[in-house]
Amino acid sequence: MTGQDAPTHVFDEAVALEPIGENRFRGRTHAAWANMVGPFGGITAATMLSAILQHPEKHGDPLALTLNYAGPVAEGEFQIEARPARTNRSNQHWWVEMRQGDEVVTTATAITGLRRETWSETETAPPAVPAPEELTAATSDRGVRWVDNYDMRFVTGGWDDVASGEEQPESTTTMWIRDAQPRGLDHLALTSLCDSFFPRSFLRLGRPVPAGTVTLTIHFLATADEIAAQGTDFLLGSVHSHRFHGNYHDEAARLWSRDGTLLATGTQLMYFKS
Amino acid sequence: MTGQDAPTHVFDEAVALEPIGENRFRGRTHAAWANMVGPFGGITAATMLSAILQHPEKHGDPLALTLNYAGPVAEGEFQIEARPARTNRSNQHWWVEMRQGDEVVTTATAITGLRRETWSETETAPPAVPAPEELTAATSDRGVRWVDNYDMRFVTGGWDDVASGEEQPESTTTMWIRDAQPRGLDHLALTSLCDSFFPRSFLRLGRPVPAGTVTLTIHFLATADEIAAQGTDFLLGSVHSHRFHGNYHDEAARLWSRDGTLLATGTQLMYFKS
Repeated sequence: MTGQDAPTHVFDEAVALEPIGENRFRGRTHAAWANMVGPFGGITAATMLSAILQHPEKHGDPLALTLNYAGPVAEGEFQIEARPARTNRSNQHWWVEMRQGDEVVTTATAITGLRRETWSETETAPPAVPAPEELTAATSDRGVRWVDNYDMRFVTGGWDDVASGEEQPESTTTMWIRDAQPRGLDHLALTSLCDSFFPRSFLRLGRPVPAGTVTLTIHFLATADEIAAQGTDFLLGSVHSHRFHGNYHDEAARLWSRDGTLLATGTQLMYFKS
Repeated sequence: MTGQDAPTHVFDEAVALEPIGENRFRGRTHAAWANMVGPFGGITAATMLSAILQHPEKHGDPLALTLNYAGPVAEGEFQIEARPARTNRSNQHWWVEMRQGDEVVTTATAITGLRRETWSETETAPPAVPAPEELTAATSDRGVRWVDNYDMRFVTGGWDDVASGEEQPESTTTMWIRDAQPRGLDHLALTSLCDSFFPRSFLRLGRPVPAGTVTLTIHFLATADEIAAQGTDFLLGSVHSHRFHGNYHDEAARLWSRDGTLLATGTQLMYFKS
């Protein structure tokens, strides 16, 4: 690093992509974001969105993103193809595919768009919780490296409940979270945060079990200015499952700013074994 | 119709597709499913899934489906391309695209998979409501033709509240719904039902406004046998929005069987004007 270069953040290192042709980008996995198998799904999601955001034809800000985790991402290089399927006056629809060699490892669709002022209301307020300063940062003893990149402060349904070995009566986890190394919030960081909750099956069963996200859908309910206004502050996240059945369960997450602005929802389907 | 043909249902007529080559199908819009502009989004979603279900390489039952409404579907013929992006031992990832001429009008991804028995629990019970037999079927005076295909019985947040012209304090609609012409429930019908709620902006603002679904994600939380077991009975649906802001709002819907089995969730992002 020379004196003229800005210091890089471990998040920006992971989502960095090199353009290698029309609609095509190259990146590589980053050791600091390793999960049990392959990289943390949130960083993969952010990397897929990153391809759209640096595409020369991008029109508007992210509105929605659906990630499908088709297979494990191996350590090393990957290629992403991001292609506008249709560009309208006020929005744009995207196809995105990540490959390693000949194998598709992740697919995604996304919608970007222009936003205009309308009637506005947040109907779902955040739960009443203590401020993050009144809570202890969770220890990073979960056996996966990526959690070190975040300062998580559990309010309810924390890792202690998983470690307890006792089944829990409900699946809700509520936590404050921010980057361990400060970084201003943007759509990429928010994408990753939407996937930062451990699997609900762990909490209900009171033990880690084989589990993984199959598909993740994020709806960006805040405008870019609202997201940028969060700066490096904590976000409040809360997640729960509706149903566990036949090898799969869903997860519904919501992320608010400290002042109660609902920034995004993240909806997942996960496989699990029990 | 000859004596040997089974009588056709208006739903099956609409989702019928003719294979026209590898991964390719042809269909056409059906007048009975007309919405304000183009066909009802639920029937488009079901038609996209129908291409997967009749694809010779299909592996497993639908687990998740994300539909992106890229542009209006014009009256008449359309072509669908449905292609497996990756087939794993226990699941399969799909790309689906609907075109009219050179224009992409709808994109989708889907995941099908095999399911196995695991620990099972429905955490989100249905709201306590009167039986559908105690409620009146909604009249079909909403100015769109597709609603005639359903028997809807509003419990709360019905069309009367929209017609009232008064802003409502919250966005929840709860209703019983089934096909007006009886038809056994399957994944296609359930897909369409996930989109059968009128826009939440109508309810909050107390008047119909320009609004439309941009993206819809369905998670099938029930197995095929549970879905088939519903037969022609009513399902209970409940939907609400988390936030309305900057031209867009989300919607989160849940559909239960009469006996409280959570069959699916449907999560949308809609544009609206106010």
